[in-house]
Amino acid sequence: MIKYQDVAKKIKQTIYQQQLAKGTQLANIEGLINQYQVSRSTIIKALNCLERQGVIYQVQGSGIFVRERKKRGYLNFLQSHGFTVDLEDVYGSSTVFNVDIIKPCSKVKENLQCDDDEEVYFVKRLRYVEGKLYGLEQSYYRKKLICYLNKEIVENSIFNYIQENYNINIGFSDKYMQVIKLDAEMAQYLGLQAGEPALCVEEIFYTSSGEPFDFSKIIYHYENARFCIQNHSK
Amino acid sequence: MIKYQDVAKKIKQTIYQQQLAKGTQLANIEGLINQYQVSRSTIIKALNCLERQGVIYQVQGSGIFVRERKKRGYLNFLQSHGFTVDLEDVYGSSTVFNVDIIKPCSKVKENLQCDDDEEVYFVKRLRYVEGKLYGLEQSYYRKKLICYLNKEIVENSIFNYIQENYNINIGFSDKYMQVIKLDAEMAQYLGLQAGEPALCVEEIFYTSSGEPFDFSKIIYHYENARFCIQNHSK
Repeated sequence: MIKYQDVAKKIKQTIYQQQLAKGTQLANIEGLINQYQVSRSTIIKALNCLERQGVIYQVQGSGIFVRERKKRGYLNFLQSHGFTVDLEDVYGSSTVFNVDIIKPCSKVKENLQCDDDEEVYFVKRLRYVEGKLYGLEQSYYRKKLICYLNKEIVENSIFNYIQENYNINIGFSDKYMQVIKLDAEMAQYLGLQAGEPALCVEEIFYTSSGEPFDFSKIIYHYENARFCIQNHSK
Repeated sequence: MIKYQDVAKKIKQTIYQQQLAKGTQLANIEGLINQYQVSRSTIIKALNCLERQGVIYQVQGSGIFVRERKKRGYLNFLQSHGFTVDLEDVYGSSTVFNVDIIKPCSKVKENLQCDDDEEVYFVKRLRYVEGKLYGLEQSYYRKKLICYLNKEIVENSIFNYIQENYNINIGFSDKYMQVIKLDAEMAQYLGLQAGEPALCVEEIFYTSSGEPFDFSKIIYHYENARFCIQNHSK
């Protein structure tokens, strides 16, 4: 972990452990430099990082303040792939149906910018948060980049596995979303009726060097899945 | 507009006007300093801003590259309030039902942290994008902060009006979303049937000094409203 990320994490932990109320003023930059014994630029980067995460806000000439924490029962929508990043205080699990090596269909091929002869891992799993069925996830990983997956791995966080084993840094993603009516097959997976609503999210994940490595489609259970985005205008 | 934002806007315009393909490498930082005749720190801030907006990605030791532009027909979900910020190349309009001064109900009062005797402007309008009905918006503005609104103002961008007339800078927002089934009243507004799906987004907007000034609830038309988020892990 880069130093400023480590400091950001510590500041965040302090805010949550001490249950600081919204609007609480933190120490100023000098104070934080002393407290964490790091450079000014590290503190500034850490604060900008926390600002983007929606943990704090900085008021020019006035100070650094705690933002309202998101309501319970809502997942962070910007960190929701596999929910894992958000699960610091929430229990998540999966039921895996298959981990297959396949030839991608044209849509997957296009989204992942696959060569003609490339193969992908196809993973289908139900995702649960605190025991509640959140959604059905169908993901495609380029085998060229992620050489090996199995059921045990995909029962846990695939992203942690990828980062640890393949030296892949997750850079950015394009997320497309719309509300749909469930077809009979999807409805059955989610224990709902055909025609009932769902949120459909398709997301392409890129490495930090700009290579697409994962295309995922998640159909979220409309009653169980609720999301929050703590947005910042900067 | 702050200088780095101005430079960011110019770089973005160049990318879009020249229709640079994804993966196209831009000039390096030195090159951009020369081109825009601004300081290194302004260029770095502009690039970070464009990275967060999903326009470019920076690969350490390698360069600055153009990201894939979002597909047409999807609105930027992080800039979707009133859609206005996103409407650089899309035509948006509104049908306004009412602009009333009311006593807020307890939910609105809580979300806006109103005092006991505070009044709010209540605005109800249908929002269209390129002639398509996107959603029904019900917004509450604190009269204490936004002293005056009328039908003409809310037919256009309320946020532009607020920023220009009340010296309010929009700082951040908390956005909560879930999929719902429409009740009869909502369905009628959207020209749909009761029971059909919709995306419901509730959002609290804060000034840059942390004061809530707008609570909005938008019910999006499930067939017409589609969204994109170009996310970045940094």
